[in-house]
Amino acid sequence: MTHKLLLLAGDGIGPEAMAEVKKLIAVMNENGASFVTEEGLVGGCAYDAHGAAISDADMAKATAADAVLFGAVGGPKWDGVPYDVRPEAGLLRLRKDLELFANLRPAICYPALASSSSLKQDVIEGLDILILRELTGGVYFGEPKQITDLGNGQKRAVDTQVYDTYEIERIAAMAFELARTRNNHVTSMEKRNVMKSGVLWNEVVTATHKAYSDVKLDHMLADAGGMQLVRWPKQFDVIVTDNLFGDMLSDVAAMLTGSLGMLPSASLGAPDAKTGKRKALYEPVHGSAPDIAGKGIANPIAMIASFAMCLRYSFDMVVEADRLEAAIAAVLADGLRTKDIMSDGMREVGTVEMGDAIIAK
Amino acid sequence: MTHKLLLLAGDGIGPEAMAEVKKLIAVMNENGASFVTEEGLVGGCAYDAHGAAISDADMAKATAADAVLFGAVGGPKWDGVPYDVRPEAGLLRLRKDLELFANLRPAICYPALASSSSLKQDVIEGLDILILRELTGGVYFGEPKQITDLGNGQKRAVDTQVYDTYEIERIAAMAFELARTRNNHVTSMEKRNVMKSGVLWNEVVTATHKAYSDVKLDHMLADAGGMQLVRWPKQFDVIVTDNLFGDMLSDVAAMLTGSLGMLPSASLGAPDAKTGKRKALYEPVHGSAPDIAGKGIANPIAMIASFAMCLRYSFDMVVEADRLEAAIAAVLADGLRTKDIMSDGMREVGTVEMGDAIIAK
Ligand SMILES: CC(C)[C@H](C(=O)O)[C@@H](O)C(=O)O
Ligand SMILES: CC(C)[C@H](C(=O)O)[C@@H](O)C(=O)O
Repeated sequence: MTHKLLLLAGDGIGPEAMAEVKKLIAVMNENGASFVTEEGLVGGCAYDAHGAAISDADMAKATAADAVLFGAVGGPKWDGVPYDVRPEAGLLRLRKDLELFANLRPAICYPALASSSSLKQDVIEGLDILILRELTGGVYFGEPKQITDLGNGQKRAVDTQVYDTYEIERIAAMAFELARTRNNHVTSMEKRNVMKSGVLWNEVVTATHKAYSDVKLDHMLADAGGMQLVRWPKQFDVIVTDNLFGDMLSDVAAMLTGSLGMLPSASLGAPDAKTGKRKALYEPVHGSAPDIAGKGIANPIAMIASFAMCLRYSFDMVVEADRLEAAIAAVLADGLRTKDIMSDGMREVGTVEMGDAIIAK
Repeated sequence: MTHKLLLLAGDGIGPEAMAEVKKLIAVMNENGASFVTEEGLVGGCAYDAHGAAISDADMAKATAADAVLFGAVGGPKWDGVPYDVRPEAGLLRLRKDLELFANLRPAICYPALASSSSLKQDVIEGLDILILRELTGGVYFGEPKQITDLGNGQKRAVDTQVYDTYEIERIAAMAFELARTRNNHVTSMEKRNVMKSGVLWNEVVTATHKAYSDVKLDHMLADAGGMQLVRWPKQFDVIVTDNLFGDMLSDVAAMLTGSLGMLPSASLGAPDAKTGKRKALYEPVHGSAPDIAGKGIANPIAMIASFAMCLRYSFDMVVEADRLEAAIAAVLADGLRTKDIMSDGMREVGTVEMGDAIIAK
């Protein structure tokens, strides 16, 4: 059975990081795996080529693929392009059209990097939490979303946060399922003291919990949650939250670990009624880092770790995923570092050398 | 000239903390100051007394006062009360009806507490940044804000983020003014890549900057801003952002300092056309901490420091404000600590003793 992958490397350091995954896929195919890859454009490079942040043809490829591997989008070159075709619009269309409602963002502290965080070592050593972010609802997609000219030099900007019961239900259910494979603890975060969507979120998560009463459930206001993440992140196991809070909180969590260049993410849809397969997109948490693009110094680990998540969640290749993750840890333990995670006594390597070392393991 | 203060102690540890400020005001009056204080109810205690989170009579007192000192609101006792009369509604009504559009939240690391943060000492030592949060707009107050029953067991929750040009203009101008009294650097944070309000925010801040070109202005996406706060907060001077991002980011910033129980805030309105005076409310950044309320162990410093901000911003009593802030630092340097900031070798004291020690200084 072949596995169909669409590779969307995007902008900035995306292509460099993706190149390392391509080498890895080639090696795996030589050793009996059967990945078939296609490539497409997303973000600024797609705008330059087609005038859209992703073309309909590439969207069709994404829909047909078993999984999408996504690099990164954006850069100063496209700061002035119209809102509808800005680089991020490509990513948002992929999430929305593929209905990838569940964004899994593990915040893991790699032991070899525990000292490189701005947080004290004991606060983050051994940290392994999972932020589960709702990805197709909320203020990202709600209408109206517009700027109106009121005259007199005044404009009015409006964004709309919308959540329906079913959207909260399915992400809550996934949070509880995931917690069962981990430490059985879910913390739900919203602002029910200010937002009606927070009130509904709280209500639906609580109701959904009835079918998962073996899992511990806590509720926390999102601002207090941000504080607690900084104070003592190990109190959490799975955090489930909405699209915008998830954006903020997962970035804070990623930075805590000191391993930002290392962190992968998975965006999953609902299981198909017939095949049981989920649509899926895998991407590093870091951005396109235009300042270091093309220099061969980008850290490819988050992209490679995203491919490991792909093996695990899309293809049930658990052994291979484990081996790949172990290879990453081993290379770090050997003292290899890209520039972003370099520290005293370690050996600085470029993107390609880091990729080769992981493949060798 | 008398200074009219309305004291709204609120719930939880609010009254205990406010009691220390009352003692301080009494001492200042004995020494020639002329504060006239009134008291009122806000939050859960107001709901219990009047069925509203703040009564119209107390709102009238707030409008008539030169400044409001606010403790904290909320607690599990009121978790089930209707949304419109929940404790937070009292605070939100004060902010909205007094048009307190500018919320100043200094995130300062007290030298004596630099080691108590979860962040490494060198990351936060000497930290002194100011988060300027827009406080009367955005998703907090935009309409529609409602939950609709769609039938079939489905509900839809909607919150609306609205910003008009003038709202962004006045907070941006204040950011630049404040930066001129500090390190001349403003960082504006929004999500212009996803939100139309972010697009307008960015545009208006940039336009307002033209009249303040001596101040350095940066723009940062709010999620990246959260990351950068954790990574290296000293890169910032003044951060200006919207109501919801400000809520999250200022809480994260407060926790960074390791001095959460110490941090004050000021919420200011526009200068009155005739008198030049601004409406103002001063409150600690911490919440009502119902778990420790009534035990005499709460840290009154944030409340006392909020009064220092009141002296500075509402009454131009700069010398007195400086002396009060110096007294807080001195008491900490002497080794006095309330339970929340206790560490080895220090002397643990209660709320009253901490208040007395500061007054004595
Ligand atoms: C690129 C941007 C649209 C995106 C988001 O806001 O969701 C990014 O910040 C992320 O977290 O994946
Ligand atoms: C109590 C609550 C309504 C309030 C807010 O969300 O603004 C609080 O978190 C704050 O930051 O002052």
